Amino acid sequence: MKKVDVTVVGGSAAGITAAITCRRHYPEKSVLLIRKEKQVLIPCGIPYIFGTVEGPDKNLVPDAVLEKNDIELLIDEITDIERTDRFVTTANGENIGYEKLVLATGSVPIIPPIPGVDMKNIFVVKKDVSYLQQMLNQLNRTSNLVIVGGGFIGAEFADECRKNRHIKITVVEMLLHCLMLTFDEDLCAVAEEIEKEQGIEIIATEKVESFLGNDTVKGVKLASGRELEADMVILGIGCAANTKLAEGVGLELGLTKGIQVNRYMQTGDDNIFACGDCAEKVSFFDGKPSNLKLASTATRESRIAGANLFGVRRINEGMIGVFSTVLGDTAFALAGLSEREAKQKGYNVVVGKSEAPNRHPSGMPETANLKVKLVFERGTGIILGGQVMGAKSSGELINAISACIHEKMTIDNIATFPMGTHPALTASPIAYQLTNAAEMAFKSMQLD
Amino acid sequence: MKKVDVTVVGGSAAGITAAITCRRHYPEKSVLLIRKEKQVLIPCGIPYIFGTVEGPDKNLVPDAVLEKNDIELLIDEITDIERTDRFVTTANGENIGYEKLVLATGSVPIIPPIPGVDMKNIFVVKKDVSYLQQMLNQLNRTSNLVIVGGGFIGAEFADECRKNRHIKITVVEMLLHCLMLTFDEDLCAVAEEIEKEQGIEIIATEKVESFLGNDTVKGVKLASGRELEADMVILGIGCAANTKLAEGVGLELGLTKGIQVNRYMQTGDDNIFACGDCAEKVSFFDGKPSNLKLASTATRESRIAGANLFGVRRINEGMIGVFSTVLGDTAFALAGLSEREAKQKGYNVVVGKSEAPNRHPSGMPETANLKVKLVFERGTGIILGGQVMGAKSSGELINAISACIHEKMTIDNIATFPMGTHPALTASPIAYQLTNAAEMAFKSMQLD
Repeated sequence: MKKVDVTVVGGSAAGITAAITCRRHYPEKSVLLIRKEKQVLIPCGIPYIFGTVEGPDKNLVPDAVLEKNDIELLIDEITDIERTDRFVTTANGENIGYEKLVLATGSVPIIPPIPGVDMKNIFVVKKDVSYLQQMLNQLNRTSNLVIVGGGFIGAEFADECRKNRHIKITVVEMLLHCLMLTFDEDLCAVAEEIEKEQGIEIIATEKVESFLGNDTVKGVKLASGRELEADMVILGIGCAANTKLAEGVGLELGLTKGIQVNRYMQTGDDNIFACGDCAEKVSFFDGKPSNLKLASTATRESRIAGANLFGVRRINEGMIGVFSTVLGDTAFALAGLSEREAKQKGYNVVVGKSEAPNRHPSGMPETANLKVKLVFERGTGIILGGQVMGAKSSGELINAISACIHEKMTIDNIATFPMGTHPALTASPIAYQLTNAAEMAFKSMQLD
Repeated sequence: MKKVDVTVVGGSAAGITAAITCRRHYPEKSVLLIRKEKQVLIPCGIPYIFGTVEGPDKNLVPDAVLEKNDIELLIDEITDIERTDRFVTTANGENIGYEKLVLATGSVPIIPPIPGVDMKNIFVVKKDVSYLQQMLNQLNRTSNLVIVGGGFIGAEFADECRKNRHIKITVVEMLLHCLMLTFDEDLCAVAEEIEKEQGIEIIATEKVESFLGNDTVKGVKLASGRELEADMVILGIGCAANTKLAEGVGLELGLTKGIQVNRYMQTGDDNIFACGDCAEKVSFFDGKPSNLKLASTATRESRIAGANLFGVRRINEGMIGVFSTVLGDTAFALAGLSEREAKQKGYNVVVGKSEAPNRHPSGMPETANLKVKLVFERGTGIILGGQVMGAKSSGELINAISACIHEKMTIDNIATFPMGTHPALTASPIAYQLTNAAEMAFKSMQLD
């Protein structure tokens, strides 16, 4: 029987990163990555297949990253794990021994039990090249697209599907606003405004009652009774941990139905680790279960799992969600808790906001507005979250904020944070949004 | 005699920020800002007057920022401070009482004692609108420009002066490379390559012996004997704290000739604070004197001084220099210590590097390479510095690194840092440069 030191199950962001991390930390170990897909899609890049990058073939993770790191690749599916004798069995009938096993089996899209959901031209967002190619082909024939769910997937698909197409797009969202599970209402309102300017119709606080048609979808019936014409539907209502293999071999699941892991990313079996979308998560703030699923978090967990395989080196302090996206030409980003979520968790909060151009003087090229909102706990002054909107440097600024959250920095720490500024890169040092938002939070506390 | 609670001397970044901070922290106090300039230039924006923004009038700090914050403005010069009775005397003969005084008198360019340095068409970089307008007028008549000093001022002036002009530009630098007081040699080499591609000649490891000409400069004679033709010279060799007023009233200076301050930005006189370029600085890393002068640091010190005026609220933990610039279309940034400087300070260092496109997949618009180099102390694994080169998001990424330095994060902390990523904004989560540079530092330690 073939035997390797480490077997990683799953070839997406979590699996690749776990394998590379193992290679970096344990250079002498043999590492095998088993995945069922011939080609691996960049998960967050999937919406961009439908507009900006023109096709799934332009959105692949090259296998070269595995070769370069001396990771063996096997395209096959694991059907069973023999935990006592430590070997896996594949669909092709191969048995492969392991010393340590990493489960990075990802997630699967949720298909809601709505009547008619199995009709033709109703799609979920699968990480599958040929399925996505079919979706793209159908999109290019479509006049009326309905997107169910106005979260990140819904908003990004709407923004991409409109590009270079004459198509009517309608987004149906259950909550008051799109993106409302992530951002505070003021940012959601701006995001919706941008979508509307591009001709996208948003129907909020509304549910889908059924899909209309025979074999093929022809329309969407809403709970209010309104009917929408539709020759294509995309369901973007979230995904669930893919735990089939883990459950099958008796590994426990957590409260959000992810594979239960400890702070070292170990499952109940000392020799089996889990990371990424398939693993149970807890919040950095209060240790409570979190069902956020993000590729960035997946790779973070993989950097912990991979380092801990042969001796504990790293601890998972819990999930700090860091989200970002671009709608039209405006970036939206959040790290940690929104004001609403912080209040829901019982925090007494104080908020500071600051906005300024991202260049100085404002005649500099590429000038765009950039707005920062920070949420602190009143009393301790510890930062709980930040939201950024505007210029594309938001994508890195939100990571500076994430570092502040991770290190439990206070209003004062952030107001006197040693930032750098430059005319061609950032706001002026007088107006720098991050430090000034902290000062505004202080000022707001003074006034209470 | 007129009397105010707080008088701020100096109207540039430090003075404005000290006044605003005082307003935010002590809303009931009256604040007066006295400056001698009618108009205030954005200090870091000065090089961009000569190319991108076309004139000093396009690079002003609007006085509206003072009005908005209810700060009184007086255009006048303070000639004396009566410390016992707490009042200042101005050039116009006014006496104004204060409770607390903030000195933000900035810096003055260094004029080296080189023979001929007082000839016509030899300029330093003064924060003075009409002087800069004269400089711009002369530049537009110039065929051969020699810039003495290849630091940030020299490099940025060279890059801007070439724009839309047929002009021969030569930079004379004493050290081995341009920008070598800040960056490690590998980054300096790339910066020089970019300058050379734009037709700028760089003469390194060379000194100016004298300026040639009669009343008006005609050339530059180098120590090697070589002579350069020149109808204009810009001296960019640094600046010195402007301490004339402080010295005149008996305040002590520090080792780098800045006004001596304690960790609360207080001078030897309890009622007088100093901040910005005029104030003495110490390093965050070892408490030793630092003669770095940056607008971002100035505003940071002002946020400390302003908050401490009527009760100590904030401590200055010392200077973490954060630099950034753009040459051609490539950003260069550093926070903390370069590898060379860390070694000079006696650290045993370990270095990690990572580079990747700033978008994913690479077919996304605005894709540019982005390279991160991190320097850690071997053993403790604490981060000492970071350098970033490439895409313009460097301007914010360097601030994420600065937060890591400020919080003394380790290789492991940074490798498992909760970053966010997005196709249209950052590298992929697998290739994210900051976390991966930390991993590469770990790997490099493993191999030792």
